[in-house]
Amino acid sequence: MTSEPPPQTRFTAEVVLRWGDMDAYGHVNNVQFHRLLEEARIRAFSEWFHASGGDSMLRSGVLLARQEIEFLEQLTYRPEPVAIEMWVTHLGGASWDMGYEIRDGDALYARAESTLVAFDLAAQRPRSLSRDERSALEALLGEPVAMRRRR
Amino acid sequence: MTSEPPPQTRFTAEVVLRWGDMDAYGHVNNVQFHRLLEEARIRAFSEWFHASGGDSMLRSGVLLARQEIEFLEQLTYRPEPVAIEMWVTHLGGASWDMGYEIRDGDALYARAESTLVAFDLAAQRPRSLSRDERSALEALLGEPVAMRRRR
Amino acid sequence: MTSEPPPQTRFTAEVVLRWGDMDAYGHVNNVQFHRLLEEARIRAFSEWFHASGGDSMLRSGVLLARQEIEFLEQLTYRPEPVAIEMWVTHLGGASWDMGYEIRDGDALYARAESTLVAFDLAAQRPRSLSRDERSALEALLGEPVAMRRRR
Amino acid sequence: MTSEPPPQTRFTAEVVLRWGDMDAYGHVNNVQFHRLLEEARIRAFSEWFHASGGDSMLRSGVLLARQEIEFLEQLTYRPEPVAIEMWVTHLGGASWDMGYEIRDGDALYARAESTLVAFDLAAQRPRSLSRDERSALEALLGEPVAMRRRR
Repeated sequence: MTSEPPPQTRFTAEVVLRWGDMDAYGHVNNVQFHRLLEEARIRAFSEWFHASGGDSMLRSGVLLARQEIEFLEQLTYRPEPVAIEMWVTHLGGASWDMGYEIRDGDALYARAESTLVAFDLAAQRPRSLSRDERSALEALLGEPVAMRRRR
Repeated sequence: MTSEPPPQTRFTAEVVLRWGDMDAYGHVNNVQFHRLLEEARIRAFSEWFHASGGDSMLRSGVLLARQEIEFLEQLTYRPEPVAIEMWVTHLGGASWDMGYEIRDGDALYARAESTLVAFDLAAQRPRSLSRDERSALEALLGEPVAMRRRR
Repeated sequence: MTSEPPPQTRFTAEVVLRWGDMDAYGHVNNVQFHRLLEEARIRAFSEWFHASGGDSMLRSGVLLARQEIEFLEQLTYRPEPVAIEMWVTHLGGASWDMGYEIRDGDALYARAESTLVAFDLAAQRPRSLSRDERSALEALLGEPVAMRRRR
Repeated sequence: MTSEPPPQTRFTAEVVLRWGDMDAYGHVNNVQFHRLLEEARIRAFSEWFHASGGDSMLRSGVLLARQEIEFLEQLTYRPEPVAIEMWVTHLGGASWDMGYEIRDGDALYARAESTLVAFDLAAQRPRSLSRDERSALEALLGEPVAMRRRR
């Protein structure tokens, strides 16, 4: 499955597969796709929120409120990383949505979308995004994820 | 978060947590929710497709085409299982959609929905559901999953 | 592979497998054997250290210092749990060794041994075992693990 | 904890951590150390057995018969890989032992040793190492792993 090149406002994380990501079907397990997305997100955060102190988002806390994924191509282990493109699809006061594409060149293995909530772990409640966090996310605002399998 | 009791047409799998499902935030990691759903599905399949030879669905092959989840409550490890309620939300010729709720009594931790495709692993292509498979799935047809966080 | 029945001083945890524990070879992955042992240990601790407040050991902290395993039989997923027998093979001031056998009836899938250190997570250093903890562990003192593959 | 530089006959795999490797204690979980060792091994095999067709060892089959690990330092997630040094500690007709050190510069997080068995997956029995496989392994023969915590 091929698709057009990603636009400029995306951030790409190279995420390395592990042989152990494969299941008894001999391909990367569906659950492990979410592990790859999590790792891409973590790597993106340390770049995006650099002005706010790098891993401040992770240290203060961020929760996943929603995730949706469409699996397009089977992926098998290889030593080379996959490219996970990320961009922002919606920006709220304490939360944002982000899109992902798991790619290798023209191949598109999966598209996904998450809702993330900035969360004060100590107080155990959502917190407002800071000005630095908002401007980092705004710079990556892009189109909605083109989900095709929702009924 | 509480919600009304599940209707009759649901199938419940008791899925056991592991301490290792928790992440550095001290709660069950978002990725592991998908592992719990996978395990519930596997256990459901061996019941649902009993007439077609028990694990025939798994042996011949079934792929996950889509998954959507809303995380409602944080879950922490305890020795007792969670109850994962499952039902069918759409039935096609070679695929079906199913809903899930991860519960413990009145608590609702997550709701989710999957699209599954009966897949011929040898031929590497979708295959039609058999009559026995269809009638097993039809018996569990129920309401759509009430997703509330889609934009 | 069969072997003699376990002696009286062992504690048994029933640990449930997951389909996702299998790897591309179609059997439970070697790494996941360690996950099963971890889960058995966690369940044992809440029993053993009941007098000291149940999960006190986990909350105050315990680190794994060493682990050794011999894989004897391939294990494939099934809905039934495996039995993990545990006993104590050495008792020190701040640490202890424990043996494990992963079994199903007469079948013995793996034998293993761990060294565990009671650890003060706040101070980040080992701490002495309490009197209650020692007496719980003493009650399970048994023979060394009969490792056969060390060179 | 520091230690002398590794000798020449070692093979180094750079293995990338994932945030999800951490557990509720906020450090890389003991089980995931085995996942890192597995990944290092897989990457080593494709180099070592290049003359025998690259991933021939994996495709024909190789089983882990034994593993021993000593945990020396707690490891926390960071985007940079760890270096896993590997060498051969014993060479048999159908099996070999290999040593590992998980390092980052002078820091030594863990040392480990595995026994691996060349295994014919189709026939489900051990097979002899080929001449190419033996000579690849011989080139990496080195000292035993200096385990210090065995009783």
